[in-house]
Amino acid sequence: MEITLLENERIDDLTSQLKIIQSRDVFSFSMDAVLLAHFPIIPQRGKIIDLCSGNGVIPLLLATKTRASIIGVEVQERLVDMANRSIIMNGLKSQIEMVHSDLKEAPKLFGKGVFDLVTVNPPYLPLTGQDQNLNKHLAIARHEILTNLEEVIQTSDQLLKVGGRLVMVHRPSRLVELISLMRGYRIEPKKIQFVHPHRHKEANMVLIEAKKHGGKELHVLPPLIVYGEDGKYTEEIYQIYYGDQRG
Amino acid sequence: MEITLLENERIDDLTSQLKIIQSRDVFSFSMDAVLLAHFPIIPQRGKIIDLCSGNGVIPLLLATKTRASIIGVEVQERLVDMANRSIIMNGLKSQIEMVHSDLKEAPKLFGKGVFDLVTVNPPYLPLTGQDQNLNKHLAIARHEILTNLEEVIQTSDQLLKVGGRLVMVHRPSRLVELISLMRGYRIEPKKIQFVHPHRHKEANMVLIEAKKHGGKELHVLPPLIVYGEDGKYTEEIYQIYYGDQRG
Repeated sequence: MEITLLENERIDDLTSQLKIIQSRDVFSFSMDAVLLAHFPIIPQRGKIIDLCSGNGVIPLLLATKTRASIIGVEVQERLVDMANRSIIMNGLKSQIEMVHSDLKEAPKLFGKGVFDLVTVNPPYLPLTGQDQNLNKHLAIARHEILTNLEEVIQTSDQLLKVGGRLVMVHRPSRLVELISLMRGYRIEPKKIQFVHPHRHKEANMVLIEAKKHGGKELHVLPPLIVYGEDGKYTEEIYQIYYGDQRG
Repeated sequence: MEITLLENERIDDLTSQLKIIQSRDVFSFSMDAVLLAHFPIIPQRGKIIDLCSGNGVIPLLLATKTRASIIGVEVQERLVDMANRSIIMNGLKSQIEMVHSDLKEAPKLFGKGVFDLVTVNPPYLPLTGQDQNLNKHLAIARHEILTNLEEVIQTSDQLLKVGGRLVMVHRPSRLVELISLMRGYRIEPKKIQFVHPHRHKEANMVLIEAKKHGGKELHVLPPLIVYGEDGKYTEEIYQIYYGDQRG
């Protein structure tokens, strides 16, 4: 199948089964998205929605693990276009629907209380002067310009069924805010995992799974360490990226 | 010096410098207390108060690291008595004052907004029927019978100076509640460390340092792993317990 690439776009391997269109100028996925897609127990049926979906990396990864229908919502039309071409390239048009919209509109577009799982890799950084140094595409993906953490959680609450799960990746520096907001909307954190670049470094990512109206008991999973003493990926990261597909 | 031991009491080494009176029937310190005393940056002057002080293990450990005056507050008279004999045995009567009181009375007894550091290793478990299976001393130390998490945080808030720090050890299962309550009292978590019994096990303790009216940025420290693959203490735990005192 012939897929059109725009200027400065390239096709990368996402997994051994999946390819993805990326662009350094517009959007490239990072490890955050891969770890997020690997984190939750994924419902095998029902409905999944991915907010702040970017170039569709999370819907693509989830599609290999479930038959549930998956919607991706992305506010930047340029990224929706990239995602749509990746979806076609991977033959996943019947499972993934990519929608160009502000995430706040999602409950109106798709219904309230209907989703089993919401995934989101939101912009991490509060709005500051610094975002002016980036191009517009990257700035919107990284900084809270068009949305913010409370809006993400409030919208997720509206989208989720009671008992449905919200799965998010964020910076540990904002964990207190994240947990307080989730509790404010009765989305109860159930499972947290911290990602440390090295065994003796502070965490630089946090993965969190929360359940709408869930019970109050949290599990803190074993730490996820990215690099070993030898400077290579640890076994656990290798498994997440490559599964059992080694030589 | 002659120290009187009551029935079923014994004298244990706490560190190479310190001894402590314990009793399996009444109270023995555990690793939680040692890790807690090692966690904060300890003010070298000023005032420190330890709530839920038990047999005084934390005041004893802190006394070797600072010249600040230290108050221990404990609701069980039997434990205050044990603590007082340990304090005398270690020659620390001029630095540590052990007080028999409900922690709620502490702000009235010692003043509001006067402490630089509050440490607390509170009862971890909510009030349930199970506490009836323990003897009264152990039940009060482990279950929220005479106090609870909100009361501990509220009292700490009253005791602390603005900018002073609250340092606590608790179960990760209650982290969401802990963080929400701290935020409710404007005691902002600044530093968290999770303790995992093994590298690939869930956390079973969390150490948290929070600052009264502090800024909103959290650091998640490298995980503290207790046992290595060889079943022995890891180097970091060995350092905390024994410092540089190895043969």
